[in-house]
Amino acid sequence: MPEHELRSVIEAADHAINCENLDALMEFYAEDATLVVQPGMHATGKQKIREAFAAIFDYFGHSLAVRQGGMVFVEGSGTALVLARTLLNGTKDGQSFDIERHATYVFKQDTQGRWLCTIDNSYGTDLLAHTGAV
Amino acid sequence: MPEHELRSVIEAADHAINCENLDALMEFYAEDATLVVQPGMHATGKQKIREAFAAIFDYFGHSLAVRQGGMVFVEGSGTALVLARTLLNGTKDGQSFDIERHATYVFKQDTQGRWLCTIDNSYGTDLLAHTGAV
Repeated sequence: MPEHELRSVIEAADHAINCENLDALMEFYAEDATLVVQPGMHATGKQKIREAFAAIFDYFGHSLAVRQGGMVFVEGSGTALVLARTLLNGTKDGQSFDIERHATYVFKQDTQGRWLCTIDNSYGTDLLAHTGAV
Repeated sequence: MPEHELRSVIEAADHAINCENLDALMEFYAEDATLVVQPGMHATGKQKIREAFAAIFDYFGHSLAVRQGGMVFVEGSGTALVLARTLLNGTKDGQSFDIERHATYVFKQDTQGRWLCTIDNSYGTDLLAHTGAV
């Protein structure tokens, strides 16, 4: 796969998460984007996504760190599907954790050609199992 | 999950595949959509997608049938991510086969509100393994 400009966009978004910089983080989302907070719980719109991230940061005692272990980019008609090996680590209730997810992120280009995240679903196709579809 | 209008769109597209109705099938795609034909092989644009499907129909000796065993819909900012348990069956070289994939389909709404497929990736996050990202 050739290198894709979205790689640096996603790395910058991860940096904003790791620094808990909500103002910077919100710049990566389209106005009516949807974040899958957990299976069955979606946050739609920048304000709700911002509140969800603030709650996530609190939940993990401000220890959450995210990085991508590998990414695949598929682009079509002004949209892009990013498949990512998303690695999360931190500490919860005194125990350190390492989580690996196979995530699915959808982006679209705005009229200036800038990529904005429209759907942030770190659970990938595992949502099928969580919702009883498999 | 509530019922989503994309369910009937995808069922109609599957019907077009099963009937090898390429004219009807192409109506579901955006002009510059991308079909992941197989890992590492993408077809972009309606004409190339049409040719890819014609080759797929030939490859399976016109036996290919597709249906969705379960779907999850996540919508954000005029786009939708469909996660699907995609079931394929048919006959190849005299042997019947049943394949299950956890697929990822991206749609966007056009100016009339009609959903068009922009990225058709039946391999879902398995592309990460195929391309060495995991």
